[in-house]
This record gives sequence, structure tokens and C-alpha cells, in this order.
Amino acid sequence: MRDDEPALDRLIHEPARLAILTVLSSVESADFVFLQRTTGLTKGNLSSHLSKLEDGGLVAIEKTFVRRKPNTSVALTAEGRERTARHWDQLDLMRARAQAPADDRP
Amino acid sequence: MRDDEPALDRLIHEPARLAILTVLSSVESADFVFLQRTTGLTKGNLSSHLSKLEDGGLVAIEKTFVRRKPNTSVALTAEGRERTARHWDQLDLMRARAQAPADDRP
Repeated sequence: MRDDEPALDRLIHEPARLAILTVLSSVESADFVFLQRTTGLTKGNLSSHLSKLEDGGLVAIEKTFVRRKPNTSVALTAEGRERTARHWDQLDLMRARAQAPADDRP
Repeated sequence: MRDDEPALDRLIHEPARLAILTVLSSVESADFVFLQRTTGLTKGNLSSHLSKLEDGGLVAIEKTFVRRKPNTSVALTAEGRERTARHWDQLDLMRARAQAPADDRP
């Protein structure tokens, strides 16, 4: 990335985590099964990525019982929502800069 | 990624390589110094990423002398151009799918 362009956040950019965060950006919260279905990740992969995201402060995980069955609900934290949106903006900027005619580039 | 959605190509998705490939997508070819300036990468990082991309068949690297000075020119191969464009399409699809209202998701 250029000096004036912060490096892409690897916690967010990893493909599976980018998919998880992007799905969560469009909902208030989502349960584990929904996330598994929409991302296509295995149970183990999804769990390990979610704990990395939780450790990084980007998601909040809530474990409850629904009709006596354990239920895991995941939501973006405010920081998670902000940093995910910024990540997509950075990708858009990278693309736009690359597609600007070569002589227009500072 | 969902079963019907191929996984993101990690050779391309790595942040620095995505930046290099995206810059190269908008030019016929670019010399090393131009790539260094537009991506902000160090000489060492740029060289190591370029050899990975060359090994992966995504770029072609040509070393010549310009006015008796060594010059390295880099261009996407046809495969590189196609796979980079497809990568951005996949990112767009991921984003669009995530932003589709939850009940519209198959």
C-alpha cells in the first residue's frame, strides 16, 4: 500500500473472515447456523475464525438457550462495523487508484 | 465461501499481491519503480511477491537494459488478467450477497 494508504487489515482481509464480517455487516446479529450456511465454512473453521474476531474486538458472541437448545448468536461490535466498512472502502480505493489512467496518478 | 462460490484465491487475495495485480490490470506493462511507487512496497517485498506471482503464472517479468541501465518490466499474463478480474467479481459477489436482505438469500 502506498504510504498515504494504510495497509489492509489482515485480521479482516483473510478470505473466510472477510466473508463472515461482510455477512454480519448486513444484519443486527446472526446465529451460528445462519453464518455457516451463508459462508459455507465448516463448523470448526467458523468457530476458530469467530474467536479470532472476538479476540480482535470485532464481534460479540452470545451463548443462550432457545427452547432448551444451546444457541450462539454473533453480532459486529461498533468497532467491527466501522473497521469492516473501512476495509471495503480501502479495497474500492485500491481498485479506483489502479484503474485511474497511469498519468493521473500522483 | 458457499459451496456454489469458489474460495477466494489466496495467491491473489494477499493484500500486497492484490495491490500489484490490480495496478497491473490497468496497464499494458509497468516497470519495477512504477510498481514500487504505486504500491508503496519495499524493493524486497515487491521482488518476492513478483516471483510468487510469476511462479503462479499470473505475471511475466522481462529484464532488459535501457540506456545501459538494467530495467525490469512486469505485465499480467492472459491468465493473470482473467483471474484478477474474476477475483474482484468474487469480492463484489460476496459483498452483494451479504447486503441482500436476509430472507432473499437462497
